Amino acid sequence: MAQGSQLKRRGLLFVLSSPSGAGKSTIARLLLGADDGIALSVSATTRPMRPGEVAGRDYHFVDDQEFDRLVEAGEFLEWAHVFGRRYGTLRSEVRKSIESGRDVLLDIDWQGTQQLKQVDPDIVRVFILPPSMAELERRLRARGTDSDEVIAGRMARAAAEISHWAEYDYVLINDDAAACLTNVQAVLDAERLKASRRTGLHDFVRGLIG
Amino acid sequence: MAQGSQLKRRGLLFVLSSPSGAGKSTIARLLLGADDGIALSVSATTRPMRPGEVAGRDYHFVDDQEFDRLVEAGEFLEWAHVFGRRYGTLRSEVRKSIESGRDVLLDIDWQGTQQLKQVDPDIVRVFILPPSMAELERRLRARGTDSDEVIAGRMARAAAEISHWAEYDYVLINDDAAACLTNVQAVLDAERLKASRRTGLHDFVRGLIG
Repeated sequence: MAQGSQLKRRGLLFVLSSPSGAGKSTIARLLLGADDGIALSVSATTRPMRPGEVAGRDYHFVDDQEFDRLVEAGEFLEWAHVFGRRYGTLRSEVRKSIESGRDVLLDIDWQGTQQLKQVDPDIVRVFILPPSMAELERRLRARGTDSDEVIAGRMARAAAEISHWAEYDYVLINDDAAACLTNVQAVLDAERLKASRRTGLHDFVRGLIG
Repeated sequence: MAQGSQLKRRGLLFVLSSPSGAGKSTIARLLLGADDGIALSVSATTRPMRPGEVAGRDYHFVDDQEFDRLVEAGEFLEWAHVFGRRYGTLRSEVRKSIESGRDVLLDIDWQGTQQLKQVDPDIVRVFILPPSMAELERRLRARGTDSDEVIAGRMARAAAEISHWAEYDYVLINDDAAACLTNVQAVLDAERLKASRRTGLHDFVRGLIG
């Protein structure tokens, strides 16, 4: 637990991006399990629910009409088209966490990250790279559900996502999930200690030296 | 150990400042003991050596003439007057660590930090606050060597140093040395993972996606 954590500070928007297969979902799950101070922002999407997914936990599944309505109503902090489907971050999801005193984990791609940075320049952007493309392909194949053609498409998409790494504040290489989690946690802990976000410091120092 | 640490990156100039008595020396010693990747920059000073100090370990002790010569020769990254004595960071100290692949810990005050930031905007600045002024006074008195008048002078100096807290990137409260060290280490680990400093990432990504 961060020291001096009793001090007031601004909640963090903590973005994790990576190509599919780089292990981001595992890292996100481990982080949410290990750190009570951060909660996932559940995205809205127009893509259909997959087996094993739970509505409201994995995504808010909505139809195109409802997504249009949310866009019109200004309910999204960011949204993007990905292969004909739409994905977006709801303001209400972020607000809910921040108001409960927790930071927000956003599992979004480079398009969403670019938009979010425009809306809130204070976001923290972390990109997770696979150790190699061979390892990425191995992980994608290990799922055992996709044809060679689908795998080839995912690999091309992964390369396109990776090409945006330099737009991130931190870039981590995921050789090993536990080591990568340690690094993600160090980044989160450090960002929580940034003077610019610890709004309670002014009062604390006023109390110290008047 | 930071993951992907085999990647080339720029060495870090890591500044620790605090008022005397806030525990900075303890934290610095613990950090240097725990982390092989960082080395102390030993400052030059014109103040006399104190009992228990070792020349070249605690400071490079020089006379006024030698200090003048070093200033003239442009050997200092920063230097400042503090109560009639001069203190400075030698370029050679910083170069030595960086060339050996290690980050540099600088134990300097707000004046030195301001100058260093001008020379190298990429420095990381950490300020350590005491939990209270009563605790600071208690720690200063625990040394058992100083008169009330000297203590009063140190307390005034501490308040002046603390007034510069907002010029730092991170501000930590030292309630407990072990917890404070954990936070300092998280900041150091995270800063090492900043994409802007990991010069090896370009080659790594070129290797990944061509």
